[in-house]
This record gives sequence, C-alpha cells and structure tokens, in this order.
Amino acid sequence: MAEIGKRSWVIADGYCPSRSSGDDPAMISHEAACMLNAGNEAARVSFTVFFSDNEPLGPTDVVIPPRRILHQNLAQLPGLTVPKGTDYSVLIESDQPIVIQHTRLDSRQAENAVMTTIAFPGE
Amino acid sequence: MAEIGKRSWVIADGYCPSRSSGDDPAMISHEAACMLNAGNEAARVSFTVFFSDNEPLGPTDVVIPPRRILHQNLAQLPGLTVPKGTDYSVLIESDQPIVIQHTRLDSRQAENAVMTTIAFPGE
Amino acid sequence: MAEIGKRSWVIADGYCPSRSSGDDPAMISHEAACMLNAGNEAARVSFTVFFSDNEPLGPTDVVIPPRRILHQNLAQLPGLTVPKGTDYSVLIESDQPIVIQHTRLDSRQAENAVMTTIAFPGE
Amino acid sequence: MAEIGKRSWVIADGYCPSRSSGDDPAMISHEAACMLNAGNEAARVSFTVFFSDNEPLGPTDVVIPPRRILHQNLAQLPGLTVPKGTDYSVLIESDQPIVIQHTRLDSRQAENAVMTTIAFPGE
Repeated sequence: MAEIGKRSWVIADGYCPSRSSGDDPAMISHEAACMLNAGNEAARVSFTVFFSDNEPLGPTDVVIPPRRILHQNLAQLPGLTVPKGTDYSVLIESDQPIVIQHTRLDSRQAENAVMTTIAFPGE
Repeated sequence: MAEIGKRSWVIADGYCPSRSSGDDPAMISHEAACMLNAGNEAARVSFTVFFSDNEPLGPTDVVIPPRRILHQNLAQLPGLTVPKGTDYSVLIESDQPIVIQHTRLDSRQAENAVMTTIAFPGE
Repeated sequence: MAEIGKRSWVIADGYCPSRSSGDDPAMISHEAACMLNAGNEAARVSFTVFFSDNEPLGPTDVVIPPRRILHQNLAQLPGLTVPKGTDYSVLIESDQPIVIQHTRLDSRQAENAVMTTIAFPGE
Repeated sequence: MAEIGKRSWVIADGYCPSRSSGDDPAMISHEAACMLNAGNEAARVSFTVFFSDNEPLGPTDVVIPPRRILHQNLAQLPGLTVPKGTDYSVLIESDQPIVIQHTRLDSRQAENAVMTTIAFPGE
C-alpha cells in the first residue's frame, strides 16, 4: 500500500450543535474526524483540543490499525469531553502518515445540513 | 493543455446514505469523485476502498480519456461494491496527473444537503 | 499588498442544477469561481471548460483589476455557454497570482443547499 | 505545543446573507474565520477586506493568545464594516503561524445551510 498523508493536522472550526431534530440516531448533530491509515503500520493518533478562554485539553490517543479507517466522533474522544455548543479547534498528531477530513452534520432544524473539508495538513 | 494535478489522492470521509427522499433520480443520495484529466494522455485511475473492520477492496480501474472529465459515482465502481450506510475511505492512484473533488448529496430528509471538498493530494 | 496565490487552478466538480425554487433572483441555483487578485497588477484570467464526452470549450478571458475581487458566475462566462444539468470541470489560468474558491447554491428543492471549497491550486 | 500553520491566508468567497429566518440568535446568517493559534506566543492577526468595485478596507487587527482559538465573525471585525449582501474576499496576515477555516451559515430560508473549507494558505 502507498504511504500517503501527513503526521499533523488541524481542524480549526470545531462546534458541535447542542440540539438535534427527530429520533433517528444517524441524524443527531455531530462532527467527525474521518481518518485513513493506508499504511502497513498501526498509527497512534493524539488529539489536543483548544478553546477560546481555557487551556487546551489532552492529548488523548486512539489507534488506527494498518489499512483501516476511523471516523472519530469528536464528542466521543476517549477520556476527554468536548462541550456541545462551544467553539473549539483540534490539533491531531500521528506517528504514521494519515489523511483527515472534517465533516459536520447539523440537524438543529428539521432538515439536516452538512459540511466537509480536508483538514489542514502540517508536516 | 497544461499538465495539472497529482497522481495520488485520498477521500477520507466516504459514506453513502442508504436512504433518499422523493422519486427524482438526480436527487438520490450519492457521492462522487469528480475527476479532471486536463492532459493529452489517457489516465488509468485505480480505486482502493478502505473500511473500519475489514481489509481494503480493490484496486479497480477506470480510464479517463485525454482532455475529459469523469464524475465517478462511488457506489458504481466497476467490479467493486461499496455498501451503503458504511464508513469508508478511498485511495485513488493515477498514471497521469489528475484533479479530484469529492461531493456528497444527502437526501435522507425532504430537503437535500450537499457538501464538497478538493480531495487530499499526495505526490 | 502581499503577492498571494497561484497562477493555475482547477474546479473539478462543476454542475449547475437546471432547476430552482421560488422567485428570489439571489436564490437561483448557480455556482461561482470566487477570485481575489490581491496584487498591484491587473490579472488576465482564462477559463477552459472540460466535459465527459466532448472536446473542451475556451479559453475565454476575464480581467480582475488590481486589489479587486471577481465572483464569476460559471454560467455567465463571456462567449462560452456551459449547459445546465451537465457535469464539467474548469481549468483557470492567470498571468498574476490569484486565489479561487468554488461555491454552489443548489435550490432545486424548497430549502437551499450550499457547498464550498478552495479550488485546487497548481503552480 | 507544535508550531503549525501559516502566516498568510485568503478567504476568497466572502458573502454574508442580509436576511435570516427565525428568532434564534445562533441561527442568524453569518460567516466566520475560525482560527487556531497552537503556539506559545500571542498572534497578531490583521484582516484586509477586498471588494469588486472599491479599494480594500483595513487592515484591522485582532490578537489570539497563545494556545487559544478565535472564531471571528467577519461582520464584527474591529473598526471595519463589511456590508451584508456584498461579495468580498479577505486577506489575513499573522505574525505567528495559525490555521484558518472558513464557515458560512445561511439561514435565509427556513432550514439552515452550512458550508466550510480550510482557507487558502500562503507562505
């Protein structure tokens, strides 16, 4: 498999709406860091969360096995609570090259809205 | 024509909703890898699809003629079935420089939602 | 003013919906190449439009004065008609550094949907 | 903390809808430059706003403390008024590396629409 990606990434616009519409679990407002580890080594990936008025939280780690993806819900990072309805950014550092895309589903109103971008790649 | 683009690309947030609203074929939930081959040689483009819990599928190939585009529906890759309602990522490798933009139409609810990003370019 | 930007760009996912909802002119389905020329020289910008099954159209040119923006509706390029409801890509070449962001408003249904991405920068 | 980011950025598609639906302040149409300063020095960040038919406005400055974020509403830059319903672009220059993501909430119709992209990074 190709080695593709970077070892540091930023999602600058973190904001998880605190409300949702309807009962469908798939339609709950959420945002995710969608990550691909295309390589042959497991990637240890650490998340540090930054806020407007407080020191950052973390880092906290997840592992992506070789040749696997992980679509990580940013409200469900291990051992670290990102409050809903709060502006934040995330710095993501990996010991292997990975690729990250940031997606948000906003279902505060009856019809869902979605947005996505490849995260900002550092070195 | 200018030679523009890269030979490897990643779409990290693959997810095709399994439901749609209404009868209009253009409004069925789908996602696409929108590709431009601006060069004067045909591009052979291979897709490898990665999952959370299984080995990758593929590669499977498509060809983009010189000076042509191909908006490839990711649920219709030749000889390779990407299940609906499942998280995945796609590694796309080409023997010629191409440019890829990832777009999803989500029509699970009555009003459609769209999102797009230029895919992540490797080397 | 800073010299910032690139001289070649690609919008890979071109598609202008052929239908719109309502009477508000601002709500008609459209897509735009939103361009900034932050420099002190006028930028001559040429558009070449690529399709799935036909030779490309263009190039056709527009001029962005120094320190000005141009949000170019892609259905209103001078002397070049991009059909509605048709997949296309655009190669944009400028004699000065510029920055391009691609945005689509889709109002085929009663509630509008929007998507955006920085276009792909070449050299 | 890692030094990550760039010192110049462009948001090319600025446009703040002049109308909104409903009474919820969080649902008012707006757009933001979502910025992370992951470093250990305060970042002084200057905004210059470009238009189609007039000379640019600014620069005007904001400060992001070390290890903090700032989600800057682009209609609320200090000492500089960006008119609603007008096309514009923004050049953002910082004396420290930062990362910027551009997001717009469009609530002109009853259901909100959102779009996002990492801004264009210069040097």
